[in-house]
Amino acid sequence: MTELPADGLMPFHAMEILKRAKAIEASGRTVCHLEVGEPGSPPAPKVIEAVARALPNAQGYTNAKGLAELRDGLVDYYATQHRVTVDADAVLCTMGSSAGFIIAFHTAFRPGARIAITRPGYPAYVNTLLGLGFGIAEIPLTAENDWKLTGADIAVAHAENPFDGLLFASPANPTGAAVDRAQLADIIATCKRLGVRLISDEIYHGLDYRCPSVSALELTDDAIIINSFSKYYCMTGWRIGWMVLPQDLVRRAEILQQNLFISAPTLSQIAATVALGERDYSEEQKAGYAANRTLLNDGLHALGFDIGNPSDGAFYAYAGIAKFSNDALQFCETLLDQAGVAVTPGIDFDRTSGNGFVRFSYAGKREAIEMALDRMGAFLK
Amino acid sequence: MTELPADGLMPFHAMEILKRAKAIEASGRTVCHLEVGEPGSPPAPKVIEAVARALPNAQGYTNAKGLAELRDGLVDYYATQHRVTVDADAVLCTMGSSAGFIIAFHTAFRPGARIAITRPGYPAYVNTLLGLGFGIAEIPLTAENDWKLTGADIAVAHAENPFDGLLFASPANPTGAAVDRAQLADIIATCKRLGVRLISDEIYHGLDYRCPSVSALELTDDAIIINSFSKYYCMTGWRIGWMVLPQDLVRRAEILQQNLFISAPTLSQIAATVALGERDYSEEQKAGYAANRTLLNDGLHALGFDIGNPSDGAFYAYAGIAKFSNDALQFCETLLDQAGVAVTPGIDFDRTSGNGFVRFSYAGKREAIEMALDRMGAFLK
Repeated sequence: MTELPADGLMPFHAMEILKRAKAIEASGRTVCHLEVGEPGSPPAPKVIEAVARALPNAQGYTNAKGLAELRDGLVDYYATQHRVTVDADAVLCTMGSSAGFIIAFHTAFRPGARIAITRPGYPAYVNTLLGLGFGIAEIPLTAENDWKLTGADIAVAHAENPFDGLLFASPANPTGAAVDRAQLADIIATCKRLGVRLISDEIYHGLDYRCPSVSALELTDDAIIINSFSKYYCMTGWRIGWMVLPQDLVRRAEILQQNLFISAPTLSQIAATVALGERDYSEEQKAGYAANRTLLNDGLHALGFDIGNPSDGAFYAYAGIAKFSNDALQFCETLLDQAGVAVTPGIDFDRTSGNGFVRFSYAGKREAIEMALDRMGAFLK
Repeated sequence: MTELPADGLMPFHAMEILKRAKAIEASGRTVCHLEVGEPGSPPAPKVIEAVARALPNAQGYTNAKGLAELRDGLVDYYATQHRVTVDADAVLCTMGSSAGFIIAFHTAFRPGARIAITRPGYPAYVNTLLGLGFGIAEIPLTAENDWKLTGADIAVAHAENPFDGLLFASPANPTGAAVDRAQLADIIATCKRLGVRLISDEIYHGLDYRCPSVSALELTDDAIIINSFSKYYCMTGWRIGWMVLPQDLVRRAEILQQNLFISAPTLSQIAATVALGERDYSEEQKAGYAANRTLLNDGLHALGFDIGNPSDGAFYAYAGIAKFSNDALQFCETLLDQAGVAVTPGIDFDRTSGNGFVRFSYAGKREAIEMALDRMGAFLK
């Protein structure tokens, strides 16, 4: 698990840890799953009911861009949540945000282009970009600055080595850092000044514990928006997300979707259409994450992890492990094998400094967090 | 709909025609759908039942490679249908064959590599390869040679302008042409001699009307196999397929899957696992296509289309329209608007000679074929 192929592709260790955890469970032991960013609850009951009803008659492809009802629902979502008017024609339903990234990169850029990302950041960013033949520019963030990206950070990195695009998430994985409206406006203005196309990854929107999430759409027409039903709507395994495209990119994105993916899973589109109307259920889940967030943060602090205030959003705590180890992967493997607690090594998110960190997901049940803290307490003694 | 962007990307006209057809239906008129390669029947009843049972408890991601039960089922499939031993570790479940192609290209090649395809061929081949930054080499096929690819064709094309890979489907879209064991062995031996990596698109396997489909796995360990539940198992909208990888590519493919796609839709994996055991149902569907095949072929011949013997496999008839038009797209649009019959212009499959052809899918209900023939009879008079 330590190979580093010539082209820089690395395994997604969260998935490797999940595989190892499932093998341990298959042997009869229990595992506390804090490794994968996955809600512990199913989608809202009405979502399941709607899918059950649709099951006998929802077999075929949809239009490449997605069901009209779903895209209309997303137009309403932007009007209601963000007071922004979106053209349904600019909305494209994707096979999770995963497919959205592939379409975004190939719509806005050509292989060989350089895209900036933050470090730490979502590991699939680096691996997908490198795997698809793009270049990357990493912009380092620090715990001292609450892991927040600023326009100045972008300008400094761009001056050192220019890039064509910026892929940025708020709330972010793995830190949970979220920018406010003024901070996002600063990032957008900097991108505009430098001629950098922004891809705004908004998949943790809704899961902001301080104030409503701000969409880049509220501030610019030039950004590519990527979002997903996986997190706020508890639908990871359904593989359904969406994009909102700037006018100049709509047609190319549609053509890529037609050819690269045909259409998103039909049942998942039906489920997503209903999920948009079930925000009360999602808010209940969020209240659970909010409680987990402080429980976990306090517990990690007490155990000796290096961690500041609870994260702004998403459902992650990114904690320093200097007191215990300088090899995050080994720490995670030992913690899993010996204590039955699955967490993700920081090297997934930061190939430079990640050995000093691990990521905890608090999207699961409260009991899993409590048991994990107990087990870690015994293990770390 | 006639734009041709600088990088050669073109819309997938079958999907454009589908969109136009759905708009016509929304206005209250009926359309005979012979444009999209999509079975008219749902998956087997036991598939639907299993999904209904799993619905409340199947929300999360699976392992990146897919559910163990599904991969074990596919190992059994190869043992039973092809008398080939496949390692479950070499099987990767994908979001339709669509995602399989993306993984295959990026696993075996790097952007800039040239991949050969047949002309005519599945339009997403060209568009996906160009869209992802690969080069293409088109190997022309002819009606006179029953649209079949030979080792000699490959060698001639390679001598003119070498390529790194060959992406080849049997049965093929749009012609339905299928090679027999000796012909496939000739293709594989030629690839081996030239150092060309073969990607064998086997998504129409099972739908061969003359003899059992031959998998490249029966003849070589070096090919990448791509398959799907969309066609034989009537599961297009479920977006579930699989790959079998040569040993040297397994790990890279898994890493790409983890990062590019995370995992295939969970419910679709459950459905696919059950579908593998429901081949009797699929054979019933196939009997329907077989009847449609001769009905359509005879009907098209009688109407004046230029068409030879019924196709070997898949569920397509690729017919010459020289008697009616030299502009396939205009022919298809007029046929749809005036007669309510949706078919796909040959330019989707062949940018050089496609204006002389249209593709009919006979995967639908017999009544749709009958009505389409009636309507076309009136229209063409």
